[in-house]
Amino acid sequence: MRSVLLALMSCGLCWGQAADDCKTSSLNIPGAPYPCVHADRRVTFRVAAPDAQKVTVRLGGAHDMTKGQDGLWMVTIPPQVVGFHYYSIVVDGAVMADPATRTFFGSGWDNSGIEIPEPAADAAYYSARDVSHGQVSQRWYYSKVTGTWRRCYVYTPPDYESNSRSRYPVLYLLHGWGENEQGWHTQGHLDFIMDNLIAEKKAKPMIVVMDNLNAVKPGEDASLYAARGSLAQRSVAAAPAGGGRGAPGAGRGGFPTNWGGVFTDTMLTDLVPMIERTYRVAPGRENRAMAGLSMGGMQSFLTVLSNLDKFAYLGGFSGSSGGRGGFDPKTSNNGVFADPDAFNKKMKLLFLGIGSVEGPGTKNFSEELTKAGIKNAYFESPGTAHEWLTWRRCLNDFAPRLFK
Amino acid sequence: MRSVLLALMSCGLCWGQAADDCKTSSLNIPGAPYPCVHADRRVTFRVAAPDAQKVTVRLGGAHDMTKGQDGLWMVTIPPQVVGFHYYSIVVDGAVMADPATRTFFGSGWDNSGIEIPEPAADAAYYSARDVSHGQVSQRWYYSKVTGTWRRCYVYTPPDYESNSRSRYPVLYLLHGWGENEQGWHTQGHLDFIMDNLIAEKKAKPMIVVMDNLNAVKPGEDASLYAARGSLAQRSVAAAPAGGGRGAPGAGRGGFPTNWGGVFTDTMLTDLVPMIERTYRVAPGRENRAMAGLSMGGMQSFLTVLSNLDKFAYLGGFSGSSGGRGGFDPKTSNNGVFADPDAFNKKMKLLFLGIGSVEGPGTKNFSEELTKAGIKNAYFESPGTAHEWLTWRRCLNDFAPRLFK
Repeated sequence: MRSVLLALMSCGLCWGQAADDCKTSSLNIPGAPYPCVHADRRVTFRVAAPDAQKVTVRLGGAHDMTKGQDGLWMVTIPPQVVGFHYYSIVVDGAVMADPATRTFFGSGWDNSGIEIPEPAADAAYYSARDVSHGQVSQRWYYSKVTGTWRRCYVYTPPDYESNSRSRYPVLYLLHGWGENEQGWHTQGHLDFIMDNLIAEKKAKPMIVVMDNLNAVKPGEDASLYAARGSLAQRSVAAAPAGGGRGAPGAGRGGFPTNWGGVFTDTMLTDLVPMIERTYRVAPGRENRAMAGLSMGGMQSFLTVLSNLDKFAYLGGFSGSSGGRGGFDPKTSNNGVFADPDAFNKKMKLLFLGIGSVEGPGTKNFSEELTKAGIKNAYFESPGTAHEWLTWRRCLNDFAPRLFK
Repeated sequence: MRSVLLALMSCGLCWGQAADDCKTSSLNIPGAPYPCVHADRRVTFRVAAPDAQKVTVRLGGAHDMTKGQDGLWMVTIPPQVVGFHYYSIVVDGAVMADPATRTFFGSGWDNSGIEIPEPAADAAYYSARDVSHGQVSQRWYYSKVTGTWRRCYVYTPPDYESNSRSRYPVLYLLHGWGENEQGWHTQGHLDFIMDNLIAEKKAKPMIVVMDNLNAVKPGEDASLYAARGSLAQRSVAAAPAGGGRGAPGAGRGGFPTNWGGVFTDTMLTDLVPMIERTYRVAPGRENRAMAGLSMGGMQSFLTVLSNLDKFAYLGGFSGSSGGRGGFDPKTSNNGVFADPDAFNKKMKLLFLGIGSVEGPGTKNFSEELTKAGIKNAYFESPGTAHEWLTWRRCLNDFAPRLFK
C-alpha cells in the first residue's frame, strides 16, 4: 500500500491532487484526493452521499459536513495532533468507514485511518529508508488451548536469512483492545522501526512475534471475546443498551472474570513452543521479552509477572497492571514486588510508556515502583494521546533497551 | 482473522448467533451476527441506519432493505453462488462497506466480502487443515524502475526453514484489476491451497511471489495508475462522467497506452533479482513460472511471451492475451506462436483457466491454439463467474503441473 502511495505522491500532475496546500492523506486508496491534510494540520474530508440528510465525520468529536451543489459533502476540521487516528463517517445515522481510505482493524471493526504527517525528521524512525529490510511473516498455528487455528505475524531482522547459523532473542508484542495481530505492522510500522533501529545499531537484531490476545477455550461463550473485541459492532448490531462491554459472563469493568488467563496459557503452551521450534531462537529467559499497548500492556504484565522464570524484559505502553486499583508493593501482583532486590536481580527491564495527554496514572505508578525500590524505566511521548504515535515512540525507546 | 472466526463458529451459544438456520458469515468481524447465510444459500443482511430514507445491498444487483421498528434495516436476498463475493451497502446514495464484515481490497477500494460456503469436502483444498504450514511474508524492496518502495508477499513452503540447503522453484502470481498484492493470500487462500497440495505431494514445494502489477515510472502521471485501480473511488470522488477508465493518457479500453510494460520492467529489473538474492531459489527458466488472474493473466502473457528465455511456465486465470482481438498464430504476440514446434519445446506449460459462467472466449482461444499446434492445458471451473472461487480452483489445478 505504502509503495503505491509513494508512487502517487511523487507524480507531477496527480489526477487525485486536492486543492490548495491540502496534501492527500498517505492512507487514501489510490486516486482519492480526499481526505487531505493542510499545512496547519486541518483536515478536509469529502464524501458522496447524494440523497443523505446529514453526514458527519467522527474524529475526536463529531463534525457536520455540508452538501455542495455537486451533491458532495465536505468539511474542514480543526488542526489535528500528528500521528495515526481512527475515524468514521456517519451517513443518516449509519456509522461507516470512509470509502476513500484504506481500513484498519480497531474498536472491533475495519474503520478508516488517517495519518497526520510529522516533520520528516521526526517521522524518519518509522519511515521506509534505504537500509536493509527485514520481513513480516504470517504464520498459522494450531492451539491446543483454544482448539482453533490461530494466526500470528513474525518480524525477522534483515540478516536472518543470510546468517543461517545465528540465533536471535524474541520480543512478544501485543496490540490493544478492539485491535488484532495486524495492528503493529499496519498501524504501528513495527517493521520500519525495527529495520531503522537495527541499521543504526541502536537495537540488537531480534525476532518480534505479534499474536492476537483474544482467546477463549473450546466451548466457552465467544461473547467473552466479542465483549473484548467489538464495541463498535455491538452498537451496529443493536446489542442490549448500555454499551458493548456488558456481555453475560463479563466481570469487573466488563472484562471476563478469567481475563487474560486463556491467552497466557495459549502463549506458553502453543505459541512460544511453535516459535522456538520454527525459528532460530536464542534460548532462555534472558532472550525473551514481552510488551504490549493498552490492554496488551495489561496482558503483558499479567503474563510476565506470573512467569518470571520465562521472561526477563517487560514493557507496558499506555497499559500495565498499575492502573487497576491501589498499588501495594507487598501484595500487588501476588507479591512479586515484595522483595525488591530479588525482583531487580531477575527483571532486566520493567518499562512504562505513556502519551503525555493520557493523564498521570502511569507516571504515578512508575514513581510508586521507584519508591518501593523497584527499578523501572519511564518514557513519556510529548503531546500525544492513547493512539498509535504514542506506541510507535514507546517501541522506538523500548527496543534499544532489550537483550543487552 | 480466520482463527478468530473459527473460535466464534465453534462456540456453544454464540452471542452473535443469527436466527434460524442462518449461519454467520465467516468473514464477519467478531461478534457480528449478520450477514448470515441460509442453508439454501440465501443471505440475510442487517445494517443500522436509523435516519436513512433508503438502504440497499449491492451484490449481483441492488437489493432494497426494509427498516424494522428497531431502526435496523434488513433484507434476505436470493440464493448466491458459492465462493467469495465483494459487496457494498448504499445508504441514501453513499456507497460504503458494510461495517459488520472485514474489508477486502477490490475494485480499487476496501469493500465488503462475503464467503458463501461450499460443502466441506469441496472447500477442503483451501481450508486450514492439520498439515505443515508455510508462511506468507511481507517484503519491501526499492524499485529503480518506479523510483519507489514497493511491497510484495512471498509464500515459502513448510520445509523452507528446516531444509536450509534446498533451493526452490518460483511462481510469480498476480491479482486482478482494482486489487493488489494482498488478494491472493486474503481472498484467494493461496497459503492453504499450497500447504494442502504440498502435504498431499500433488505439487512440488515452491516459493510463490505476489506483487502489485500497478507500476508507473517516476514523473509519469499517476492517473494512469488510478485509471487502473480505483473505479469505485472515482465515482465516490465525482470523477468526470462516463466511468473510471477514461483518464487522460488512457489508451484502448481505457488502459494506458504503455500498459503492462512498466510492470514487466519492474519485475525483471528489480523484483526477480531481489527474490533471487534473498531466497534460496533454484536457477534458470525451468524453475520460473508466472500466472495471474484477469488483468494479471493479461500481464503474465505479456511478460512471459516476450521473455521466453526467462520463464518456462505460463498461466492465465480468466485472463490472457487471447481475448484482446483476433488471434493469428503467425502474428499474434509478435509471432511467438509462428513456429509451434519451437514454442512447444520451450514452453513447458501454457495454461488457460476460466469460470464456466464467463463465456466461451477462453475455451475458443484454447481451441485456436490447439488448432495452430500450440500445446495448452484448459481448465473450466463449473458454475462460477469472474470471481475468486474460479481462481482458487484454477490455482489448485495449475500448481500441480509446475516444475515437473
